[in-house]
Amino acid sequence: MKKIDIVKKILDANEKYAFENVLFLAEHKKLCLNMISSPGSGKTTILTRTINDLKGELKIGVIEGDIQTDIDAERIRRTKAPVVQINTDGACHLSAAQVSAALRELPVKDLDLIFVENVGNLVCPSDFDLGENGKIVVLSVAEGDDKPIKYPGIFAKSKVLLINKIDLLEGGLVDFDIERAKTDARRLNKDIEIFPVSARTGEGMTDWCDWLRQSVKTV
Amino acid sequence: MKKIDIVKKILDANEKYAFENVLFLAEHKKLCLNMISSPGSGKTTILTRTINDLKGELKIGVIEGDIQTDIDAERIRRTKAPVVQINTDGACHLSAAQVSAALRELPVKDLDLIFVENVGNLVCPSDFDLGENGKIVVLSVAEGDDKPIKYPGIFAKSKVLLINKIDLLEGGLVDFDIERAKTDARRLNKDIEIFPVSARTGEGMTDWCDWLRQSVKTV
Repeated sequence: MKKIDIVKKILDANEKYAFENVLFLAEHKKLCLNMISSPGSGKTTILTRTINDLKGELKIGVIEGDIQTDIDAERIRRTKAPVVQINTDGACHLSAAQVSAALRELPVKDLDLIFVENVGNLVCPSDFDLGENGKIVVLSVAEGDDKPIKYPGIFAKSKVLLINKIDLLEGGLVDFDIERAKTDARRLNKDIEIFPVSARTGEGMTDWCDWLRQSVKTV
Repeated sequence: MKKIDIVKKILDANEKYAFENVLFLAEHKKLCLNMISSPGSGKTTILTRTINDLKGELKIGVIEGDIQTDIDAERIRRTKAPVVQINTDGACHLSAAQVSAALRELPVKDLDLIFVENVGNLVCPSDFDLGENGKIVVLSVAEGDDKPIKYPGIFAKSKVLLINKIDLLEGGLVDFDIERAKTDARRLNKDIEIFPVSARTGEGMTDWCDWLRQSVKTV
């Protein structure tokens, strides 16, 4: 029982900062999306492609969460988008307090949209509300179509599911039934928007970018 | 500081059960390997292929860790290997206490080798010692060759790195520099054994199975 109380306290402390972030984002009328996936599903490649595809239309800033290294932040920096690096030093998720500090370092007033790229982990980040406007879960087809039912938490809580690396489906090297993944994700979350994309080839990125254009308008 | 104390207490409680598992395995002279990776890197496919490849030579039992569902345990069951399912009900890693209970359910005396398939997560399970004889980290080439330096904890602690899905490298659909991954993993852990495999095609499985044959003898 003690362990449960402790976990509750840690989550409560996080909620306080998450609420501060909600107020900060509402005050500035900015859209903030929290991108969550396993390591290597392609979050950073999706972000760099999205930033480049929307260049001249939407000003995008990024908060990069990593256990250590700034490899991903460096990749974002090359797009010229403003980026703030958070190293969690071993922790498996970003906290709302870390995001609160990072939001103060970004030129928020000049931005239309802020992405948080969470630590690569399909489990823990889904329990930590960052005060974001929505979660985006990324699933690469190489990971298998059984992931929504095996890791339901994040699929149940996300606004959008990006099914990435669909270029790998050609040639039949990867078994992934897109319809199965869609059906299972919608069973967990009837409102989830689903975009199959390849951030590598650009396939499917138009619909995702259209969704972002619309979402920025409705903040 | 309080949070750190609390985390330490949870880890200490885990250590107690881990030590019990160490004694149990030593008493029975059994090899127990804790397999850790991101979701979808191919742990279950590696296990089913390994069980089938070693059939008639090594008797293998499996403890299956999942947040929910018994999809993976069902896949193992089809090989006729004994399997015990642990559902963590949301938790991001297996605990030594759960493994302790599962070990009592397996016909340990009749087995040569016990695999624990941990929850799909490259971060948290590496902090929870289960009393196993060694950790096996699995990295699929679809996840990218930067994972050892981005998620160093598990690579530093593992006896073996299985680089899986090497069949995806053909055709150039996936950028993954095996030498880079090997070099980075060995920088973190000079003794790590590395086997590039495709559990799908069977490529590279002979060296991995030879390592298991040798390791079982030296318990």
